[in-house]
Amino acid sequence: MAPIKFTIEKKLKGKLGRAGILETPHGTILTPSFVVVGTKGTVKGLTPQQIKDVGTQVVLGNTYHLYLQPGTEMIEKAGGLGKMMDWQGPTMTDSGGFQVFSLGVAYGKNISKFVKGEKELSLPEKRREAGEEPSAKIVSIDADGVMFRSSIDGSAHYFTPEKSIEIQHSIGADMIFAFDECTSPTEPEHYQKEALDRTHRWAKRSLDFHKSKENSKRQALFGIVQGGRFEELRKESAEHIGKMDFDGFGIGGSFAKEDMTAAVEVVNAILPEEKPRHLLGIGEPEDLFMAVESGCDLFDCVAPTRIGRTGSVYTSSGKINLPNAKYRDDFTPIEEGCGCYACTNFTKAYIAYLFRAGEMLGCILGSIHNEYFINHLVMNMRQAILDDRFEEYRDEFLKKYL
Amino acid sequence: MAPIKFTIEKKLKGKLGRAGILETPHGTILTPSFVVVGTKGTVKGLTPQQIKDVGTQVVLGNTYHLYLQPGTEMIEKAGGLGKMMDWQGPTMTDSGGFQVFSLGVAYGKNISKFVKGEKELSLPEKRREAGEEPSAKIVSIDADGVMFRSSIDGSAHYFTPEKSIEIQHSIGADMIFAFDECTSPTEPEHYQKEALDRTHRWAKRSLDFHKSKENSKRQALFGIVQGGRFEELRKESAEHIGKMDFDGFGIGGSFAKEDMTAAVEVVNAILPEEKPRHLLGIGEPEDLFMAVESGCDLFDCVAPTRIGRTGSVYTSSGKINLPNAKYRDDFTPIEEGCGCYACTNFTKAYIAYLFRAGEMLGCILGSIHNEYFINHLVMNMRQAILDDRFEEYRDEFLKKYL
Repeated sequence: MAPIKFTIEKKLKGKLGRAGILETPHGTILTPSFVVVGTKGTVKGLTPQQIKDVGTQVVLGNTYHLYLQPGTEMIEKAGGLGKMMDWQGPTMTDSGGFQVFSLGVAYGKNISKFVKGEKELSLPEKRREAGEEPSAKIVSIDADGVMFRSSIDGSAHYFTPEKSIEIQHSIGADMIFAFDECTSPTEPEHYQKEALDRTHRWAKRSLDFHKSKENSKRQALFGIVQGGRFEELRKESAEHIGKMDFDGFGIGGSFAKEDMTAAVEVVNAILPEEKPRHLLGIGEPEDLFMAVESGCDLFDCVAPTRIGRTGSVYTSSGKINLPNAKYRDDFTPIEEGCGCYACTNFTKAYIAYLFRAGEMLGCILGSIHNEYFINHLVMNMRQAILDDRFEEYRDEFLKKYL
Repeated sequence: MAPIKFTIEKKLKGKLGRAGILETPHGTILTPSFVVVGTKGTVKGLTPQQIKDVGTQVVLGNTYHLYLQPGTEMIEKAGGLGKMMDWQGPTMTDSGGFQVFSLGVAYGKNISKFVKGEKELSLPEKRREAGEEPSAKIVSIDADGVMFRSSIDGSAHYFTPEKSIEIQHSIGADMIFAFDECTSPTEPEHYQKEALDRTHRWAKRSLDFHKSKENSKRQALFGIVQGGRFEELRKESAEHIGKMDFDGFGIGGSFAKEDMTAAVEVVNAILPEEKPRHLLGIGEPEDLFMAVESGCDLFDCVAPTRIGRTGSVYTSSGKINLPNAKYRDDFTPIEEGCGCYACTNFTKAYIAYLFRAGEMLGCILGSIHNEYFINHLVMNMRQAILDDRFEEYRDEFLKKYL
């Protein structure tokens, strides 16, 4: 029996969007659903009780971070990610691919990516060739996997598709991802093609390894579609990955905002309709509407806590920055009518003061409000699909929000 | 009608200790009770819901901090301290005296205190005389009050007894304190005597000002007994302050740990039995037993959150430091049988990891556990008084704890 079951409840007329029900070993997710990010096995600043209270259905941990700290041994001893962090609902982990590349290649912009086809130099050879200091953050890709340095202590690590899946088995989330190469959008087409071929080979290796283990009975594996900004490559990737026996699909890569709808629609039109689709790393309200309309069921993003910690909070009239002087004397909640703990108990003036005073509670309340806002925004989109008024809801919301 | 009502329920045989009931405009406090400190109008890292869940009966805000930020105008507009921070239970504020002196005189140890009898030089004169830079943190005392510089922006402020009470009226706590001079324990007797006379005159001025205002009907004023390490001065102070028409009393000053019992007993033997007594700034378990036994009803301390944020947590076997390597693989709670949110849901290994990873949730859980531990320790002392087994409870606890 498959570890997850996905049922489509209703489709958007003439569009790819749909409302569904995703059953997992740790509970049911009503889709479309936002996925709250708990990078290191904690949603920053929130207790699991608060994670639940903001309407969270599913939490995603990052394999790269969890592998480096606290490490798989500790997570296994703790009984897996959910038990360790006391989150009883569904969980996901990404493959580690995004962080391996973004914290390696793109981090600080002063890093090299040494790709010379499938035959690679050794790491020390590459370093010498590039005149790199031993301390430089580097990542090197070969046919088999990726060598990278820890963002914590600089130690060297090597991820292969099998290693990524093995780590994700130890972490034990309900839904996990195949290991992929996440390219920079600035890479030229020939490189994107090369990277995509590698991602496809890694997808097969991830799947084969996963299926050979008992964990495949309780953990669902999602394959990742890549292809950068190139429509033909994305189509090719969707065809290729979509035919494989994954339990669901992730859509990766970064694209210009104006291209996103087309890019996502192209992919979702090809992917098998009956399996869930996760658009990786998307979370701004306008992007969520696009993603839902284009047929994505899940989306994760760190923005709600990352910006909430700085006092930047979502409202139906757009984002506002609480530390601004104009909120000093504003004794209304962040959003009138919002049912979150921050809005039902505190004023903007008080929360703004907490930020000025450097008090932790400011970060906590900002994060609570933002996670609640985004979770409920996606829940409302779902209800609007069920009620045949998605477009009206979208237009009404975005008119006020943007 | 007095704003508070104190009833003694049971006394410790042959001792000054007692269990009582303290009724305030915002609810009843069963005494002895720990008072949780919310310095700047927030208990660091805890939501008001969590403050309640750890068993808190009363929260104390610091007048000095609240006056400087967010300021009385904002607090008044918010409806007072309790409403501003969404704490519905009883509240207290200190007089600001302690911070004016400790953040002025003692801060960084490189500060002068310019006391030359009652006739004082102007602040600029003193500075010139002392060769101080304008930016130096200084405090100057005259017969009327204290000039000090803000710990936030260095701006000059002047507190008199009337000003302290006026600020505390604006903040609006149920129980407030008379303005006092908090001396350094290193001061010689002649200075302590001079400071004590000043504190006594300021007590009368605080009381007169308070009684002349409507707020005295809904806010109780506590007088503060001082006298440093000198028994005769403390007795004199207890006699003097004890005869005045305060609603309760605070016991201030710092003393060597070995002198504390004697110092507190001397004072409480003199203070009127029927009014509540607050021992200021005390919170370590061994000190709390001493204070309760010696007849104190209330005690406030920042330690539970201050040390909890660093991973230092109370257990019945003494304080432990969670970031220590030995807790990496310890999958038991901080304290077996503890009913707090941290202990009922998380292991030492996970919380220790959160501290290593620099995650906010570590600070939150450490603070929750510590406040719960101290609140319940004092509740247990109360029950032990009611059950005629205070000494057994104390001996049993301290034998294991120390």
